Amino acid sequence: MSTILKQLVHDFQFLPGVGEKTAQRFAHHIFSKDRTKAYDFVQTLTQALDQVKYCKTCRNLSENDQCDICTSPSRDKSTICIVESPSNIDIIEQSKAYNGLYFVLHGVLSPIEGITAEKIGIPMLAEIISQYEIHEMIIATSTRIEGEATAYYLADQFSDRIKVTRPAHGLPSGGLLDYIDPQTMARALSGRKFIDDAS
Amino acid sequence: MSTILKQLVHDFQFLPGVGEKTAQRFAHHIFSKDRTKAYDFVQTLTQALDQVKYCKTCRNLSENDQCDICTSPSRDKSTICIVESPSNIDIIEQSKAYNGLYFVLHGVLSPIEGITAEKIGIPMLAEIISQYEIHEMIIATSTRIEGEATAYYLADQFSDRIKVTRPAHGLPSGGLLDYIDPQTMARALSGRKFIDDAS
Repeated sequence: MSTILKQLVHDFQFLPGVGEKTAQRFAHHIFSKDRTKAYDFVQTLTQALDQVKYCKTCRNLSENDQCDICTSPSRDKSTICIVESPSNIDIIEQSKAYNGLYFVLHGVLSPIEGITAEKIGIPMLAEIISQYEIHEMIIATSTRIEGEATAYYLADQFSDRIKVTRPAHGLPSGGLLDYIDPQTMARALSGRKFIDDAS
Repeated sequence: MSTILKQLVHDFQFLPGVGEKTAQRFAHHIFSKDRTKAYDFVQTLTQALDQVKYCKTCRNLSENDQCDICTSPSRDKSTICIVESPSNIDIIEQSKAYNGLYFVLHGVLSPIEGITAEKIGIPMLAEIISQYEIHEMIIATSTRIEGEATAYYLADQFSDRIKVTRPAHGLPSGGLLDYIDPQTMARALSGRKFIDDAS
């Protein structure tokens, strides 16, 4: 394999979940078809790298100073949803169950790794909350230990000023009980509702 | 999601086996870490697209006029192995069981799709065979119908001049018999050897 090809196979592996075999397949695919698509891809990627930055308000990915959600007149500016990463916003938007603002932490609190409240933007968040007259903060961090700890920290910081909530825990839709882990099952049971209330 | 990000998610899907979900993961990954690696990748890919061409002798991918294998003094120039694509060369090289030349068809004969003997480089191959004093041609095309048909065509063209062979068919190494398809099993049985001969 030529030196450049070897380098390309190596570089492809910076993508998540791409090992050597997949990288080889990607590299060979590029030269097996006409190269126009690969050139288009290079152009888009360069453009994205140059232009995509963080929204100055919510820290979502955006090619403008403020993202589409922050500038949209139709969004409810009294609610803010806290997420760990911009990709989480896509998931929540796809649910069509939320129409408020967002704030991206770009991580979770981790004293061991030196990730402080400042690093995940808590002072910025405090600013937004006073500025926008937020009434409710929905903390949609992950249900892993660090995500939970960050949620508790946020609740501790802001629950004297605004309503602080967390999405419900329970059984995922459309799954068999056989595949549910004990912790999820325990939370689903302790959070059980009368059938009339559940929707 | 911003317009450029949407375009990037779209463009990522030109890679084989990459659907929308994976493309989204790739796109978000790029902006979640520092962007240096992504810039390095863009540079390598651009370089590869600009510089990688077909070896003028064997049609393998190469950044020079002739590939490393064709120019190597240590390769046995009396044997040539015919493969469908450059990626097949990597597989054969990894086996360390072959030290001859290669010729890449970049496809298989397919009259329906208009892929003629000229398109898969047969005249070039004929040229090489007379030029290099090739004694044996190993046809390592796939065992799919088109690969087999192409192998028969090549044998028909060249077996009056040189020895034409095909790699053995049979059971893959290290597998359970439960997962073997009937055709492979049939070929493995009909090609059975005395235990002393098998190595």
